[in-house]
Amino acid sequence: MDPSAERRYVITLSCPDTTGIVARISGFLADAGGWIVEAAYHSDHSPSDPTTGWFFTRQVVRADSLPFDADELRDRFSAVAAEIGPEARWTVTDTGVPKRAVLLVSKEPHCLHDLLGRVSAGELPVQLDAVIGNHEVLGDIVRAHGVPFHHVPFPADGKPAAFAELRKLVEEHEPDAIVLARFMQILPAELCEAWAGKALNIHHSFLPSFVGARPYHQAHARGVKLIGATCHYVTADLDAGPIVEQDVIRVDHGDTAADMVRRGRDIERLVLSRGLRWHLEDRVLVHGNKTVVFR
Amino acid sequence: MDPSAERRYVITLSCPDTTGIVARISGFLADAGGWIVEAAYHSDHSPSDPTTGWFFTRQVVRADSLPFDADELRDRFSAVAAEIGPEARWTVTDTGVPKRAVLLVSKEPHCLHDLLGRVSAGELPVQLDAVIGNHEVLGDIVRAHGVPFHHVPFPADGKPAAFAELRKLVEEHEPDAIVLARFMQILPAELCEAWAGKALNIHHSFLPSFVGARPYHQAHARGVKLIGATCHYVTADLDAGPIVEQDVIRVDHGDTAADMVRRGRDIERLVLSRGLRWHLEDRVLVHGNKTVVFR
Amino acid sequence: MDPSAERRYVITLSCPDTTGIVARISGFLADAGGWIVEAAYHSDHSPSDPTTGWFFTRQVVRADSLPFDADELRDRFSAVAAEIGPEARWTVTDTGVPKRAVLLVSKEPHCLHDLLGRVSAGELPVQLDAVIGNHEVLGDIVRAHGVPFHHVPFPADGKPAAFAELRKLVEEHEPDAIVLARFMQILPAELCEAWAGKALNIHHSFLPSFVGARPYHQAHARGVKLIGATCHYVTADLDAGPIVEQDVIRVDHGDTAADMVRRGRDIERLVLSRGLRWHLEDRVLVHGNKTVVFR
Amino acid sequence: MDPSAERRYVITLSCPDTTGIVARISGFLADAGGWIVEAAYHSDHSPSDPTTGWFFTRQVVRADSLPFDADELRDRFSAVAAEIGPEARWTVTDTGVPKRAVLLVSKEPHCLHDLLGRVSAGELPVQLDAVIGNHEVLGDIVRAHGVPFHHVPFPADGKPAAFAELRKLVEEHEPDAIVLARFMQILPAELCEAWAGKALNIHHSFLPSFVGARPYHQAHARGVKLIGATCHYVTADLDAGPIVEQDVIRVDHGDTAADMVRRGRDIERLVLSRGLRWHLEDRVLVHGNKTVVFR
Repeated sequence: MDPSAERRYVITLSCPDTTGIVARISGFLADAGGWIVEAAYHSDHSPSDPTTGWFFTRQVVRADSLPFDADELRDRFSAVAAEIGPEARWTVTDTGVPKRAVLLVSKEPHCLHDLLGRVSAGELPVQLDAVIGNHEVLGDIVRAHGVPFHHVPFPADGKPAAFAELRKLVEEHEPDAIVLARFMQILPAELCEAWAGKALNIHHSFLPSFVGARPYHQAHARGVKLIGATCHYVTADLDAGPIVEQDVIRVDHGDTAADMVRRGRDIERLVLSRGLRWHLEDRVLVHGNKTVVFR
Repeated sequence: MDPSAERRYVITLSCPDTTGIVARISGFLADAGGWIVEAAYHSDHSPSDPTTGWFFTRQVVRADSLPFDADELRDRFSAVAAEIGPEARWTVTDTGVPKRAVLLVSKEPHCLHDLLGRVSAGELPVQLDAVIGNHEVLGDIVRAHGVPFHHVPFPADGKPAAFAELRKLVEEHEPDAIVLARFMQILPAELCEAWAGKALNIHHSFLPSFVGARPYHQAHARGVKLIGATCHYVTADLDAGPIVEQDVIRVDHGDTAADMVRRGRDIERLVLSRGLRWHLEDRVLVHGNKTVVFR
Repeated sequence: MDPSAERRYVITLSCPDTTGIVARISGFLADAGGWIVEAAYHSDHSPSDPTTGWFFTRQVVRADSLPFDADELRDRFSAVAAEIGPEARWTVTDTGVPKRAVLLVSKEPHCLHDLLGRVSAGELPVQLDAVIGNHEVLGDIVRAHGVPFHHVPFPADGKPAAFAELRKLVEEHEPDAIVLARFMQILPAELCEAWAGKALNIHHSFLPSFVGARPYHQAHARGVKLIGATCHYVTADLDAGPIVEQDVIRVDHGDTAADMVRRGRDIERLVLSRGLRWHLEDRVLVHGNKTVVFR
Repeated sequence: MDPSAERRYVITLSCPDTTGIVARISGFLADAGGWIVEAAYHSDHSPSDPTTGWFFTRQVVRADSLPFDADELRDRFSAVAAEIGPEARWTVTDTGVPKRAVLLVSKEPHCLHDLLGRVSAGELPVQLDAVIGNHEVLGDIVRAHGVPFHHVPFPADGKPAAFAELRKLVEEHEPDAIVLARFMQILPAELCEAWAGKALNIHHSFLPSFVGARPYHQAHARGVKLIGATCHYVTADLDAGPIVEQDVIRVDHGDTAADMVRRGRDIERLVLSRGLRWHLEDRVLVHGNKTVVFR
């Protein structure tokens, strides 16, 4: 098989809903001979209040079905989007250009091990540019995978400087995803702003329950029968950003808080890796404080 | 709110995949002013073998957005489908016209109770025309819900006559769905043929494991850690028709075969009611021995 | 098979943990020839703080293996429990004596339909003595199942009198379980007190998220990816009593708040029926604001 | 806290069921001052056939509560077991002595990465003595974790010699667990025999469905709505040994066979790591072709 047959252009668009949007986009693609291999649509208006609706779509086109390249597709699609309206937000990405990610870690290794394993097994469509830790302890395994590791200490009296260094290290890679893989520092508001829509966090509870520190201990104290994890975009409002993915596992009276910590790692790994995959594949469209996820 | 604002036309179409199908359908709807509130697409070709692909779509349009009625929509859409190609199969249904169902039962009450409860609570978009049992025992509860009940005995030496009577009783309602809600008789091939794509069965195992009789006892003997249920279209090949929905629950060494029978009912109820809902909402498109389910 | 072979005595005990409790109980049963068919134990002390521990057990004995009846067993077991210590709490029940339940409902039918179906199918080990509604609308289906229905209106200006009547109607049955099957009135503190450990509520969220009114709408507004339901004992602290069971289902951006209401019913039904079953089978031991559930 | 407070002795026993077994074991432990921190029991007889029953137990005792060591406990417990009867099978293990494991791999890295990550994070109570691959490709990552890697080629015309070498390499470690982490060679009957109850395999389907090669492709062809994985003990009967753990994930028509392969890895990792943990913690008791798993 020709490897170029695997190359895709991924188009996303969101805008106020009206009739004819699908026709306009699909007409544009059909006129260019575009072979659509995936298409998803969502309108969030409800029957009882059609005026408040917003429209979302994600389309995947075979690159070799179009007579022009990704840049030309962007040019032409920008004209289509302009016709649709001034509020339309859109992206066109090319699966032939790997997405790039930077990981932020602390001392907890489980999410890092999982992501390194997935990247080296070719499971995640990403180029891992760097891992940055506020502790040194995870450096060896990162380097064993051939990925650069940077240690940025976060002393209690020097956090602003540490965040400045972190920002510089991250942004020189121009990453598509900044993954807080159990990074235990709370990002300052200006970083949340700068990295909006790119920074993914894994929180070890089923949000909105158990915001903040030691969520498994909170869960144990309340006596819940399921524990969970949440992957969300980072915003200045702690643990309250748009949710990308959540999942839970069953616990019972026999599970201590320490058991929950251990068992919850399985869910953290899964939820973070799923959320990251969907983000990298342009499946997540943020609207207000919610997400549309075209799985 | 005007109740007519809730009325929808549901279009499904499947055909060999090619470029331009989406554009053609959405262009037709846009030209008529159609407001699409749900749209789903699927192409089953794989990158490695694009020649074998088939295309599926389901579109939901606000009835009050079109300047013509359902019959006119069918007329006009048949022209669109004809252009798409001679192999295209399509349906247009009107949510203002309730779907009709007939239930077939035996002595096991749990799926019947569940469906009666859902219908009377308005949870399922269906008009229940009749329940037919090969035993009388469930007649009272059916009649208490105001639904006609017919008792058709199936003596060992008189099955052909019984099936003939069953067929007559069923078909006089021209039902959109014939639900085998733990009906313990195996339909003869000619009934499977006559009711193809309309007869839904619930099998009490995670097919293809444990085909045939006493699946929970088979599961217990094998020592599996999950038991399941499968909703599938009935075909002449026993328990091998296209699968619509499946689900499982966890069991362990403490569950006897009798416990599995009891606990499995929760999954049978859920899986059958989900499969039936999707069938009634035209979310299930059968292709060969598989289904596309636009949930 | 002799039906008496199915009769069981169920013993539960909780007390401060120490060595020798299991030996004492099992020695007592062995000396009497008791055939233990189920036994479960739990100690909630953690290795790091063994002094705070509490011990829980549930034992099921074949009635026909003991040379005395349930009353005699209670007499003898009370002596064992007294030796174990003054804080020991224990119960002995006889599966030959059906547990009794009263259901409280409002207008939402789905949990009621589900429980009536389960009772009439023999799935739940309970005698349903009465259903009490603050509306009349569900009376017919209750009576069709042969169960008495009482209508107690709850006018805004007459709630104390209504609760007094409700209490009288409930308590004359001396029920083992009082099930709030989507009963929309908040019980006053004195009823919570009087019915402590017997009144089970179903809350339509994954507690502690979304306490109070319209939890599905809260969930929709937050954009969570799973919705849940919680069965808990009623306490004076609203939606904060000991949790018996919880479960969740996946939702996505396509689910409106109304879809969540509908889809959540499947989880409410399951979670309530499971919690009720475990309560009826003496599988739930309450300790502080948490439960030990010996499933 | 004194680390010795964490040390446990784990006792398992299975035997034909009769009255008094629990009393005998708990009496023995109580007499010695043993502090039981976990205890689980199971009898598999059914009420309708009490003569076929078998009894299983697992007890966990604080090491520092007993006035003797593990060897002395084994001596004394062997006398208790002998009294219980000649068919009693029992084990006594000491959590202060780490279990040892050897992993067998081929080219698929995902289960290996997952287990290496868990071991290095201290999540699994095991000492990883060696990894043996029939290909060299996974050697580097194994060595980066500080674990010896052995490459044993399996040429088509030299399998008996390869299995002999494999056996020698495995058995010199006297491992408690031999984990086939996507090892693609079918063990010969004499190895299955020699490693009975120690060799764990992960099969990438929900057994008994889809035995043998390419189970995801079989699942895709059948159109199932869930795919699964199964951890089982290896026996000479391919993919038919006692099942330790299973789990599933939902798939739909949009998942190609290749998607199922990728997505199934998440379940393979989880199911294998859970099964291995339970095996290492002596939670799995094999009886005939089934398992009792005291989770």
